[in-house]
Amino acid sequence: MKAAVLFGSKSDVQIMKKAADVFKEFGVAYTAHAISAHRSPELLAKTIGALEADGTEIIIAGAGLAAHLPGVIASQTLIPVIGVPIASGGLGGLDALLSIVQMPKPVPVAAVGIDNAANAAYLACEILALKYPELKKSLANFRERMKDELAQDNGGIEL
Amino acid sequence: MKAAVLFGSKSDVQIMKKAADVFKEFGVAYTAHAISAHRSPELLAKTIGALEADGTEIIIAGAGLAAHLPGVIASQTLIPVIGVPIASGGLGGLDALLSIVQMPKPVPVAAVGIDNAANAAYLACEILALKYPELKKSLANFRERMKDELAQDNGGIEL
Amino acid sequence: MKAAVLFGSKSDVQIMKKAADVFKEFGVAYTAHAISAHRSPELLAKTIGALEADGTEIIIAGAGLAAHLPGVIASQTLIPVIGVPIASGGLGGLDALLSIVQMPKPVPVAAVGIDNAANAAYLACEILALKYPELKKSLANFRERMKDELAQDNGGIEL
Amino acid sequence: MKAAVLFGSKSDVQIMKKAADVFKEFGVAYTAHAISAHRSPELLAKTIGALEADGTEIIIAGAGLAAHLPGVIASQTLIPVIGVPIASGGLGGLDALLSIVQMPKPVPVAAVGIDNAANAAYLACEILALKYPELKKSLANFRERMKDELAQDNGGIEL
Amino acid sequence: MKAAVLFGSKSDVQIMKKAADVFKEFGVAYTAHAISAHRSPELLAKTIGALEADGTEIIIAGAGLAAHLPGVIASQTLIPVIGVPIASGGLGGLDALLSIVQMPKPVPVAAVGIDNAANAAYLACEILALKYPELKKSLANFRERMKDELAQDNGGIEL
Amino acid sequence: MKAAVLFGSKSDVQIMKKAADVFKEFGVAYTAHAISAHRSPELLAKTIGALEADGTEIIIAGAGLAAHLPGVIASQTLIPVIGVPIASGGLGGLDALLSIVQMPKPVPVAAVGIDNAANAAYLACEILALKYPELKKSLANFRERMKDELAQDNGGIEL
Amino acid sequence: MKAAVLFGSKSDVQIMKKAADVFKEFGVAYTAHAISAHRSPELLAKTIGALEADGTEIIIAGAGLAAHLPGVIASQTLIPVIGVPIASGGLGGLDALLSIVQMPKPVPVAAVGIDNAANAAYLACEILALKYPELKKSLANFRERMKDELAQDNGGIEL
Amino acid sequence: MKAAVLFGSKSDVQIMKKAADVFKEFGVAYTAHAISAHRSPELLAKTIGALEADGTEIIIAGAGLAAHLPGVIASQTLIPVIGVPIASGGLGGLDALLSIVQMPKPVPVAAVGIDNAANAAYLACEILALKYPELKKSLANFRERMKDELAQDNGGIEL
Repeated sequence: MKAAVLFGSKSDVQIMKKAADVFKEFGVAYTAHAISAHRSPELLAKTIGALEADGTEIIIAGAGLAAHLPGVIASQTLIPVIGVPIASGGLGGLDALLSIVQMPKPVPVAAVGIDNAANAAYLACEILALKYPELKKSLANFRERMKDELAQDNGGIEL
Repeated sequence: MKAAVLFGSKSDVQIMKKAADVFKEFGVAYTAHAISAHRSPELLAKTIGALEADGTEIIIAGAGLAAHLPGVIASQTLIPVIGVPIASGGLGGLDALLSIVQMPKPVPVAAVGIDNAANAAYLACEILALKYPELKKSLANFRERMKDELAQDNGGIEL
Repeated sequence: MKAAVLFGSKSDVQIMKKAADVFKEFGVAYTAHAISAHRSPELLAKTIGALEADGTEIIIAGAGLAAHLPGVIASQTLIPVIGVPIASGGLGGLDALLSIVQMPKPVPVAAVGIDNAANAAYLACEILALKYPELKKSLANFRERMKDELAQDNGGIEL
Repeated sequence: MKAAVLFGSKSDVQIMKKAADVFKEFGVAYTAHAISAHRSPELLAKTIGALEADGTEIIIAGAGLAAHLPGVIASQTLIPVIGVPIASGGLGGLDALLSIVQMPKPVPVAAVGIDNAANAAYLACEILALKYPELKKSLANFRERMKDELAQDNGGIEL
Repeated sequence: MKAAVLFGSKSDVQIMKKAADVFKEFGVAYTAHAISAHRSPELLAKTIGALEADGTEIIIAGAGLAAHLPGVIASQTLIPVIGVPIASGGLGGLDALLSIVQMPKPVPVAAVGIDNAANAAYLACEILALKYPELKKSLANFRERMKDELAQDNGGIEL
Repeated sequence: MKAAVLFGSKSDVQIMKKAADVFKEFGVAYTAHAISAHRSPELLAKTIGALEADGTEIIIAGAGLAAHLPGVIASQTLIPVIGVPIASGGLGGLDALLSIVQMPKPVPVAAVGIDNAANAAYLACEILALKYPELKKSLANFRERMKDELAQDNGGIEL
Repeated sequence: MKAAVLFGSKSDVQIMKKAADVFKEFGVAYTAHAISAHRSPELLAKTIGALEADGTEIIIAGAGLAAHLPGVIASQTLIPVIGVPIASGGLGGLDALLSIVQMPKPVPVAAVGIDNAANAAYLACEILALKYPELKKSLANFRERMKDELAQDNGGIEL
Repeated sequence: MKAAVLFGSKSDVQIMKKAADVFKEFGVAYTAHAISAHRSPELLAKTIGALEADGTEIIIAGAGLAAHLPGVIASQTLIPVIGVPIASGGLGGLDALLSIVQMPKPVPVAAVGIDNAANAAYLACEILALKYPELKKSLANFRERMKDELAQDNGGIEL
């Protein structure tokens, strides 16, 4: 199980860290790369090549504003790409979301919610779990534990 | 390789057919289901159970307006869910897109572009290709052929 | 007179408390439940069943982002559901509003304004007042008092 | 069981008729009124008075553009008001939706989806059903029949 | 020269004060009124009547959210109404702007920019200046002084 | 009573004609000018000068897209300017509305609804009526007649 | 004077032809290329290289939806890139506009209006005119002629 | 190489300074001018004349809200104009972006991202580089250095 987490700028680290946290929790190996689609396209191409050679099975790419990173990656590989729109500036991430999700066929990006890098990693895990039954089991256990906790929590709410 | 295509209403057939066309092209077996998350929740739950029992590996769910279908499915299974926002009414599909993509962790939906059911199926194929090498080969061949055709096309453009 | 207030996450308590405050003021009994439509669908179904058995007459459900909670509840009961879109993240609650209000027929949700849980409770009171004349009287008295206070206030404004 | 359907202009008849159709189906008596909040405020006030005197229990009000009608009605009565945003012009009904739903406390309007007058009537029926058990039974039967039909429909889909 | 400044809630005072400041600067007499279109419709009607009796020639009305106040005033008088959309909540005032500006004919409201009560008063002055030549002269002098100051300012900018 | 109607392009004639129709109905003299703020700024400046010399008391300016015309006029005269946002292209007139209404102080434009040139003329009439009592009378009569007609209409609605 | 016009798909020809028409009018040589940033990234890179070798001085790139083409080109060359957002689907081109204009520094794209390929070419001409005085003269003549025609046109308008 | 940086108000200095910083870095001479299109149109016209006489080759204009400045400049000169939308108030700069970018043909403005004055200056440099080979060399060197730094940075990321 090998994943990669890419993002356009070091200022995205706080957001993208949440994806890494999920990967750590579920024992998914990952590499992290700060690479801009626009500022270092050659480095990006080289990195995608290395990820393919390395057997990387899923890529999470976070980007803000014009947010081309996930789509540019998807145009260069068949490894599934999950895009995380990052809110930046006054439009609340709507710009990034549209830039990521409105990809032309047949080059899809799987968009998750704005700033929701954790969900990108959960989605990555569900995808990897198709191939790795033990990961599916971990996910199923995690969901059960979560439901149990939520059921207990629910008892003590007061408004 | 088993996929499922769900959609909330029969009026979505024209859009969702494009996903089926891609699956046919790449030899991915799929089942199709018109089930509303809101009008027939029990049927939906039963169907999800049947899909799990049946070994379905990826689910594409299309919906318009409040577009809860993909998220409701994702809450009941660990099979990865790809959501297709369908434009309907005056907001051009923005309502469906936001309803599909802004899912809370840890229950992700992979959103693709508005009305872009073909891309949902291409994404499904990329995901399945992690496990089925022959599908990966087909996808790679398809991309190469597409690039060749585009390169030839490019010659004859006149404005 | 029995109402229920549901919300997807504990972080919604500050907003949803305003609904409870209105219910307290008008003597409407209510129960409160932190239940996520996506993270604990079975608990939600069980809770809806319990609310029905218990004679609950109106449900207020608050949710942010994809905000499926009110719609999912409405798909499982005929008790009227009032949805409170909660602003969260950069889109100011527009995502939650659209996810809540754009429900397909015949499964309506009654949407109120973003973060306006108080208005959800006032609406709930107006609905209950159809059946409980004493509540109608309390509401009428409250409106009269409010108008009197506003009329007095109006005297002393200086710009 | 007495309902009223109001709308600002005769051009709204095609949309609002869908509410009337639902009322007819469930045997809810209703009156219909084309009254503009802005062009005939006195007639509106008089009509609201007449509806109150007449025992009207729920009001559906449809309006486009600035769409003040539902809110202006709600400011003059405690009868619950359901607002139907009507799409008109280039903004797809977003203007009407926001004008209807963003009401200040304690004067709520229950908004339903854009152009979705049918859902307004279904919501009205659910509300009336709190008081009229036979209507609740009709609604429950209707939902069951719908589910049965959807379950049958689901069999024959082909993509 | 008589103007009136109305606003729906005391929390709007900081914004609406800027209109008063302009009126003071140009010697336009004004009265100020905190009246909600929804919470005190009768007081509003009475106040509009008093303003008409009093010879008020222009009305500025500020409101947030559903922002019906300017339109409701315009439906009850032929005194020109200038609407100030006030930003409140997560939509940045877009809701108030649309609710104010999208009025049906023949009941116009003159909308100015979001939170721009000063511009509402400048517009009011321009309108009053049609009838009061001395005010036109003051406005002309003010614009000239402003241009002189801007011309001097422009010299010393450094980036 | 002298008004002027300006618009940026001949394609705006169908929309702006509705303003002229209102002026004709109320006997307000007007001149019409197709002048672009961007394509013929000198002609615009010259025309504004001529309108001022001519005693024009109110200006209606319609424009689409970037829609600078009303604001550019307002920067060159103290005659009140009413702006009509014209829908053009895919944004439904939201671009024109924002470009017209969000003017900086102290250079206001009075915005009316998208494509609502009739309302611009009604607003112009209300403004002119401050100075011309006979016009005020005509407007009052018109409103009364309208209310009478609406009251009669209201009788025969059937849904 | 050498320009290039690129666009992602053959369906963009009708829009992009307007840029070619302007280039023809002003005698600017240009080449046209239908190349997708996502479907044929290698062909795009090769083409950009050829354009650079060929002495191309300005690039116009039109794209819809996620609209990465202009930005991807800008990341690979220092030739100025003008982006034309093309409306496609329900969002009216807002998606394409944001994807094109919100580029990260230091990789700018010069965005023009939605579907406004003609303006892209006029902008290209103004840029080229910095270096080619005869083109500046042609542009100046064109603007003068346009102003003369508009001045004559203005005489005969009737509303 | 002569550039000019204009902006509507002194409050824009913090944003526009970033353009000046880029010009300093690349040795492009520039002048700075705080001039409002609406408050001082004559000063603006005079300044544009002076810039033309002075041999200014590129103009950057920043503005917020209705943001007419870049378009008004473009209507008065053939010097290419780059517009910087400045976020101000609750709409996050969307108003300024649309007002700047949606210009009618044949009067283009080159829009860059919201608040992205640095990118405006980079674009200006690319344009000037068409004529000044030494600037092109500096830009090329700058991009190479940037890529080298990014390549080194990329090594040390940890999530």
